[in-house]
Amino acid sequence: MSKSIFYHAGCPVCVSAEHDIINLIGKDNVDVVHIGDDRSRIEEAEKAGVKSVPALVTPNGNVLHINFGASMDEVKG
Amino acid sequence: MSKSIFYHAGCPVCVSAEHDIINLIGKDNVDVVHIGDDRSRIEEAEKAGVKSVPALVTPNGNVLHINFGASMDEVKG
Repeated sequence: MSKSIFYHAGCPVCVSAEHDIINLIGKDNVDVVHIGDDRSRIEEAEKAGVKSVPALVTPNGNVLHINFGASMDEVKG
Repeated sequence: MSKSIFYHAGCPVCVSAEHDIINLIGKDNVDVVHIGDDRSRIEEAEKAGVKSVPALVTPNGNVLHINFGASMDEVKG
């Protein structure tokens, strides 16, 4: 199975959701990307359809926005 | 592992998220509850902290609101 990608920006809502997602689907099934630290991946996240963080992009390309931590504009500052 | 509960109300956003969640965590690990049809469970969902559907309540009681289909007020009509 190909991996999901969990995009986050280190906010408290993000960290909480990250723990939940890893518990639910297993850490080997998800790549965690901190787009606040690794800003080169913001564009990739936006192209995938990520509008806010935290968000999970599934292996088939659907975007699940989980709760609400910050908009992409806030991440970009 | 105890099960997660996926609350939804049959909306297109809900159905799409349901497929994604079942693909990600496996259908044996999640109870799917349609609170539009089974209105007796609306109160249970609200007590768990569900503010909108679709939402996933994890085994440890955290609520993950996934995308946005409808508010609980809309579900209650």
